[in-house]
Amino acid sequence: MRQRSHTLTVNTRGPGLLDVTDAVARFVRDFGVQEGLLTLFIRHTSASLLIQENADPDVLADLEDFMRRTVSRDRALYRHTTEGPDDMPAHIRAALTQTSLSIPIAGGQMVLGTWQAIYVFEHRDRGHAREIALHIIGL
Amino acid sequence: MRQRSHTLTVNTRGPGLLDVTDAVARFVRDFGVQEGLLTLFIRHTSASLLIQENADPDVLADLEDFMRRTVSRDRALYRHTTEGPDDMPAHIRAALTQTSLSIPIAGGQMVLGTWQAIYVFEHRDRGHAREIALHIIGL
Amino acid sequence: MRQRSHTLTVNTRGPGLLDVTDAVARFVRDFGVQEGLLTLFIRHTSASLLIQENADPDVLADLEDFMRRTVSRDRALYRHTTEGPDDMPAHIRAALTQTSLSIPIAGGQMVLGTWQAIYVFEHRDRGHAREIALHIIGL
Repeated sequence: MRQRSHTLTVNTRGPGLLDVTDAVARFVRDFGVQEGLLTLFIRHTSASLLIQENADPDVLADLEDFMRRTVSRDRALYRHTTEGPDDMPAHIRAALTQTSLSIPIAGGQMVLGTWQAIYVFEHRDRGHAREIALHIIGL
Repeated sequence: MRQRSHTLTVNTRGPGLLDVTDAVARFVRDFGVQEGLLTLFIRHTSASLLIQENADPDVLADLEDFMRRTVSRDRALYRHTTEGPDDMPAHIRAALTQTSLSIPIAGGQMVLGTWQAIYVFEHRDRGHAREIALHIIGL
Repeated sequence: MRQRSHTLTVNTRGPGLLDVTDAVARFVRDFGVQEGLLTLFIRHTSASLLIQENADPDVLADLEDFMRRTVSRDRALYRHTTEGPDDMPAHIRAALTQTSLSIPIAGGQMVLGTWQAIYVFEHRDRGHAREIALHIIGL
């Protein structure tokens, strides 16, 4: 059994979903295990991870809209307001999605379904450099 | 250290939670590791995974109701409407629950609590054949 | 490759987030792997796990408030009411957050970001003894 770790840094461009599937697939392919387990962990609390549809970009826009409708920006609702009107909502949106994802590897690649992609979900208004720790164990 | 992979296919019957604990437990038992880690990954973006209570079926009905109340089906809210009024809400409901679950194995079985079961959460109106990739590593 | 399992029991004090980072970090340090994967699994369906900000305690209070606003306690909405007005909302809140978390280990410690802590999120009104199964695999 072998393992490998890596940190992937991506630059987001404000609220919404950024597809990182290709960069993650490259890490899996380069390590060359046939069977194993991939773990992704985002090192932030105002951005998160999500597996979602890769076909229609409207799905991504509708997901962003849902989050904006559901997690209010009304300052009167929050104690934590010093980092701006988008910060506390960003923490809540991150709590409702994922900080870590686990994806089995079979036949040398992730077992993603046909319509699945891996996204970083940025919840702040400005773009940020976001770090995702990757870990593979397998053979 | 050993590992094994498997794909479990389950047929859902419309919106709600389907208990897959027994099928998953059988896979764990058959592989025969005493200590290790089980990973479940659902290969879809309109169905998801959830650990929930196994005792009172009313809990499952109330969870389905909550999702239906919280994720509106009003077409005016969405861009992605071509696959039917249940499709975009299904993607959102999947985003709010889990695509992957990790469960340690100890004493030859999953460390589920007394009241925990593993469910596939179908979010589409019609039943579907849903694939769950399973992976165990352990000894 | 080596692995170790442990059960961490924490006593919550009613609704809200309880920081368990130090206890988890101690388990990682004691096992002494340099590189690997840590898994946390909470053995309950009315409490959950969450990675969130560790700096401003207001963030934790705002998260609890958001859950209370979003998941109604109105008995008329639920079938499952026999265990008290806080029980079904607790199951829903647990479904919206995490039952398991996966955190890579590098350089002998978890790859948590500067502002990240690991929390148990209690959703019941009374405090409970909550069990978290921990598992590490690595070298």
